Amino acid sequence: MKRRPLDSEMEMFRDSARKFFQQEIRPHGERWREAHIIDREAYKKAGDMGLLCMWADEKYGGQGIKDFRYEQILIEENAFHGDSGFFITLHSRLVAPYIGHFGTEEQKERLFPGFISGEKILAIAMTEPDAGSDLAGMKSRAVDKGDHWLLNGSKTYISNGINADVVIVAAKTHADNAHGVTLFIVERGMEGFERGRNLKKMGMQSQDTAELFFRDVKVPKANVLGKVDGGFYHLMQGLAEERLIGACGNIASARYALELTKDFVRQRKVFGKPLSKMQNTRFKLAALDTEIDIAQVYVDRCVEMHNEGKLSPDDAARAKLYTSEVNGRMVDEGVQLHGGAGYMDEYPICRLYQDERIHRILAGTSEIMKEIIARSTLD
Amino acid sequence: MKRRPLDSEMEMFRDSARKFFQQEIRPHGERWREAHIIDREAYKKAGDMGLLCMWADEKYGGQGIKDFRYEQILIEENAFHGDSGFFITLHSRLVAPYIGHFGTEEQKERLFPGFISGEKILAIAMTEPDAGSDLAGMKSRAVDKGDHWLLNGSKTYISNGINADVVIVAAKTHADNAHGVTLFIVERGMEGFERGRNLKKMGMQSQDTAELFFRDVKVPKANVLGKVDGGFYHLMQGLAEERLIGACGNIASARYALELTKDFVRQRKVFGKPLSKMQNTRFKLAALDTEIDIAQVYVDRCVEMHNEGKLSPDDAARAKLYTSEVNGRMVDEGVQLHGGAGYMDEYPICRLYQDERIHRILAGTSEIMKEIIARSTLD
Amino acid sequence: MKRRPLDSEMEMFRDSARKFFQQEIRPHGERWREAHIIDREAYKKAGDMGLLCMWADEKYGGQGIKDFRYEQILIEENAFHGDSGFFITLHSRLVAPYIGHFGTEEQKERLFPGFISGEKILAIAMTEPDAGSDLAGMKSRAVDKGDHWLLNGSKTYISNGINADVVIVAAKTHADNAHGVTLFIVERGMEGFERGRNLKKMGMQSQDTAELFFRDVKVPKANVLGKVDGGFYHLMQGLAEERLIGACGNIASARYALELTKDFVRQRKVFGKPLSKMQNTRFKLAALDTEIDIAQVYVDRCVEMHNEGKLSPDDAARAKLYTSEVNGRMVDEGVQLHGGAGYMDEYPICRLYQDERIHRILAGTSEIMKEIIARSTLD
Amino acid sequence: MKRRPLDSEMEMFRDSARKFFQQEIRPHGERWREAHIIDREAYKKAGDMGLLCMWADEKYGGQGIKDFRYEQILIEENAFHGDSGFFITLHSRLVAPYIGHFGTEEQKERLFPGFISGEKILAIAMTEPDAGSDLAGMKSRAVDKGDHWLLNGSKTYISNGINADVVIVAAKTHADNAHGVTLFIVERGMEGFERGRNLKKMGMQSQDTAELFFRDVKVPKANVLGKVDGGFYHLMQGLAEERLIGACGNIASARYALELTKDFVRQRKVFGKPLSKMQNTRFKLAALDTEIDIAQVYVDRCVEMHNEGKLSPDDAARAKLYTSEVNGRMVDEGVQLHGGAGYMDEYPICRLYQDERIHRILAGTSEIMKEIIARSTLD
Repeated sequence: MKRRPLDSEMEMFRDSARKFFQQEIRPHGERWREAHIIDREAYKKAGDMGLLCMWADEKYGGQGIKDFRYEQILIEENAFHGDSGFFITLHSRLVAPYIGHFGTEEQKERLFPGFISGEKILAIAMTEPDAGSDLAGMKSRAVDKGDHWLLNGSKTYISNGINADVVIVAAKTHADNAHGVTLFIVERGMEGFERGRNLKKMGMQSQDTAELFFRDVKVPKANVLGKVDGGFYHLMQGLAEERLIGACGNIASARYALELTKDFVRQRKVFGKPLSKMQNTRFKLAALDTEIDIAQVYVDRCVEMHNEGKLSPDDAARAKLYTSEVNGRMVDEGVQLHGGAGYMDEYPICRLYQDERIHRILAGTSEIMKEIIARSTLD
Repeated sequence: MKRRPLDSEMEMFRDSARKFFQQEIRPHGERWREAHIIDREAYKKAGDMGLLCMWADEKYGGQGIKDFRYEQILIEENAFHGDSGFFITLHSRLVAPYIGHFGTEEQKERLFPGFISGEKILAIAMTEPDAGSDLAGMKSRAVDKGDHWLLNGSKTYISNGINADVVIVAAKTHADNAHGVTLFIVERGMEGFERGRNLKKMGMQSQDTAELFFRDVKVPKANVLGKVDGGFYHLMQGLAEERLIGACGNIASARYALELTKDFVRQRKVFGKPLSKMQNTRFKLAALDTEIDIAQVYVDRCVEMHNEGKLSPDDAARAKLYTSEVNGRMVDEGVQLHGGAGYMDEYPICRLYQDERIHRILAGTSEIMKEIIARSTLD
Repeated sequence: MKRRPLDSEMEMFRDSARKFFQQEIRPHGERWREAHIIDREAYKKAGDMGLLCMWADEKYGGQGIKDFRYEQILIEENAFHGDSGFFITLHSRLVAPYIGHFGTEEQKERLFPGFISGEKILAIAMTEPDAGSDLAGMKSRAVDKGDHWLLNGSKTYISNGINADVVIVAAKTHADNAHGVTLFIVERGMEGFERGRNLKKMGMQSQDTAELFFRDVKVPKANVLGKVDGGFYHLMQGLAEERLIGACGNIASARYALELTKDFVRQRKVFGKPLSKMQNTRFKLAALDTEIDIAQVYVDRCVEMHNEGKLSPDDAARAKLYTSEVNGRMVDEGVQLHGGAGYMDEYPICRLYQDERIHRILAGTSEIMKEIIARSTLD
Repeated sequence: MKRRPLDSEMEMFRDSARKFFQQEIRPHGERWREAHIIDREAYKKAGDMGLLCMWADEKYGGQGIKDFRYEQILIEENAFHGDSGFFITLHSRLVAPYIGHFGTEEQKERLFPGFISGEKILAIAMTEPDAGSDLAGMKSRAVDKGDHWLLNGSKTYISNGINADVVIVAAKTHADNAHGVTLFIVERGMEGFERGRNLKKMGMQSQDTAELFFRDVKVPKANVLGKVDGGFYHLMQGLAEERLIGACGNIASARYALELTKDFVRQRKVFGKPLSKMQNTRFKLAALDTEIDIAQVYVDRCVEMHNEGKLSPDDAARAKLYTSEVNGRMVDEGVQLHGGAGYMDEYPICRLYQDERIHRILAGTSEIMKEIIARSTLD
């Protein structure tokens, strides 16, 4: 299905974003994968191009762009021409908005310029060893010491964990209430804040993922984010958009895998004719092309609704669930149709297969998405 | 996902259509199922309500309604409140348009009033025993006898086969060219035109499906439809809309099955709690709800594109393929969640299961849809 | 995989069973389907052939055949050459064994001759409206009145419900204990025992399925089966064999559907070549053939284990679960590959599709099987 | 299903094999994975234990063990306690048997002692860049030069490509006949035989996989294996056993993944209860446990048949196809149930997921297996 056309300003934005990813990101991908971390420089270059926190108000140095399609364009161009580990939406749309929504004027003035220029890289730390994403099982604790909070605990699977300069950390602050969680802005260099090793993963090789440790970290009161004991509700508010971002990325990745696979089967000959002429190839790719096309139309509709402020959390969950499952099917069939080549790291489909597997888990597993949807439709 | 709102005129149309199906169709369903045929009266009532061939020009007695959403509303209301065998889109949108597009002025003036009033019921006869939908294998033949054509052959699986007053019949008219097919308008009472028995089917019990026999039928030249030897191309032109109609029906049926199943699992208790509270029920229905929702958005987008004259045949094929597969999964899980009740004819889900099975076959099997899509995306 | 060879006695038994089904059962199938009930005469003919309750001791007129493979042969020959509604294992192996295991000597002497000759047809009545198979929700009650029990309640979805002369009925006999259930032998003609209508079903058209009503039925103490309040445990004991019987039937049915489909695709031509030469057909049937072959080996291994008295309830559940799911996939693809013909009642695949749907529900749904298996492997 | 018991000698063999893998293989796995190659020493230790080419005749230093169950035990113990890259069946059962079957007495006497002691490591080189496994597209050529053959060409995706001392190389030796292929024994140190880099793969990290180059390699006539132009038929003969080996490995791997996942879900708590108590976990694992159990029974039956010399190529294909597909489903669900941990390299399930993906491709893709099965059942 032909997508709704973008206006000329957006098309220009897409072109310049594409060039940025082609020139500043992809050429470094191989080196970043080896190092298991992105150069900090990449964030600065993105900042120079005005690609970070585009939504932020002009008074903080942002561009005040509220139309989510700009972010979607970035996600798509990164999927096709950039690097899966250069996860700038994490910085711009998953973490920074918490400060945008719940931060004080002082916090915004102090922190935003660095976020927008790319000098300060962001992360968010919720997940804990053994507790997964279940906030009720959180063991990190912060105690009010009058002029500061004393933070103790550890977090794991933190994306940007090594690179991050500013980390939003969730910790229990209320003894009795399982939801009594507060968000703290922890900054590089605070005493007692240490990083573990860069965790070895299945895919997303250029992304740094780490454990973070907090031992008697004194967090100044000026770095409390939002309401004391209100962290749980603050975190909830970002979820619909987080899922929409996931959906945009999943479907872009699936489309990229489909294009790679179509190219491969057209060129690869078996028993004297192109693999693309075998009925099995045709039927498998037709079915996947259909699922991808249908999912793209849904995602684009979600983006429209989100721009109107009307995207429901359960529709965002549907988009995230479906696109991640479609992407899973796509990369699996993509590898299969590549045959032995699909298992070789030099073929992009191999990497997509390994990258993909996290997306049915990250930002709410498929099981959590199903429960959210079930509540909306069954209860 | 909340669907795009209809304007007030359409909402009124939906209300009155719903009443029509609730009052004039559903109460007769049980009797029609026993008889394996719809009362001809039902068509006349639909005609009285102005529900047949709404698109036809006012000069023939039609309403000139070009917006396909009116037809979609009829399909949806019939799925929820009518009867699966009362297949009025076959009459109004699959068959009549061939005469609308390719008929002569004389044919339109002569025939349309009856189609619009419901006095003349329509069918189309392409499929033959042993040849399926493969036109190249067609054995029916018509020979030009100067002032008429002499038609011989037989057709099978003809919907409305018993009720039909006017049948568009495809026959080979060119010895050498596999595509040399012509369409003929065969009318009730023509000598040599006979009907076989009403075929017993898996579902769609109130629909009459029959074999038709043509033995030396003299078809007047005035009843040739479109170009001689041009039938193949005429038939092609209706396919995108036919698939869109299928898609609209499939997804409406899937939504109905979902609603029935949700109602059942909320009420049914197992081991002391509602079946709707079991995680398996929740996850299965959440996944189906998601697929259905995504499909609906796609179908609605196809309808928009169709209204703009831009719906591509392959996108129509995607819509038809996906909705029929989703509907298949939905009714299967619907029966399963009903348990023993799902196997009992008195539960509507049982009937939906049996009705559904034709829709992955009818109007182009899923395999044909995949080939069409593959051509558009791979070749 | 070539199956383990049978000895010559068993091969002879298979031959004579096949003839019986071909001559005495299949020719009546069409009539029975119309009538929605099997002739009682069929049971008598099976009795004459020595095919009923073959396992029963010779002193009651049985043959004392303990080798389950004889029963498996009957199931297979019935699937290929008989009629799906002639469900003699229900009589011989699902119901009669309860009396064999838990009946008194007097009961066996009184009842077995009729079961073995086919003069008395058996049924078992557990399921109730609204309660499904959840015994805790059972509402039928029997009260000890000194010389008899007074039975009240109703049952539904009872196979052989119209034909049955002897029905084993489960009823609550203990106020406090959810498992306090007793089995009663209720016989045709007992006052207050009435049958509802023959329920209309999706498939299994020649099988009678009915509601049964018990209004102040005086059941003599001599008709209590097994221990008072022990019915729950008695019923448990038959489950492994019941599931094995299901598994034998499911896989026989799947093999029959595969054979029918293979025949069809070899003969049916599309675009000039047999459907069996299309890659999609080949791959789909190869995958199903594989699943069926693997399942058959497993079922045969279960039969061996059962003959040794070592078949575990969870392995029986695995066999039942897997074979019913495979059969479901087989008939679905079988219909699809038949195209329009697959929807027509005159093609056996159409009927197999409708028959199949109950087997993922009957005798423990797939969901119950999964829970049984999970308990054995996870807890 | 309890597996058929092994005799005491085999049980002892299993114990000692297990100790070998636990002590001599697994402790080195991490280092080998980093190096992307196994120590050659490992083969020597296996040779010392008598685990290599156990089937070889005693006169060459072998043990003459024909019972395939010994090999199956090795495969299983390696899967559970060894390392996926220590692929000794490649050496012992895929490559060495070609020399066992088609080699001259001189070749056997010369080469077998080194194969059995582990001093000489084996590989086979068929696949070529761009031609995949399609022999007709093979470009490697050997020309008869009187006292030697002159071999030119290149091969890719060669397992043990770096470690191998002896490589069986297939090359075209007949200009006109697409099947005119001859096998050559190429040895380390032959002039013109060079190895490319160790190819980076998705998984199987400790296995070396390489390109091999042959530039004017003079292969002595004494190193022709089997018949000139007969290589195609020689290669065919090993396929059934190769697939059986694959099936044994796939199902062992699937069982290991299931055990790991069961352990994880029992320990992992979500919302206060073990993940193993959630219905979704239970149903998913019950279904996989069932498929694995059924597949294991089939594989064991194939091994019995193979020991009797009766395993058909198509049954071996069924076993290979089904087990690889089951393993694929198992590791996918295993990762999903591990959540974020499943994406971390430190969890074995993460590695199993990446290792698995080659097994639906290696040694004949699932698509090739389906075609083989289709030929046996449909044609």
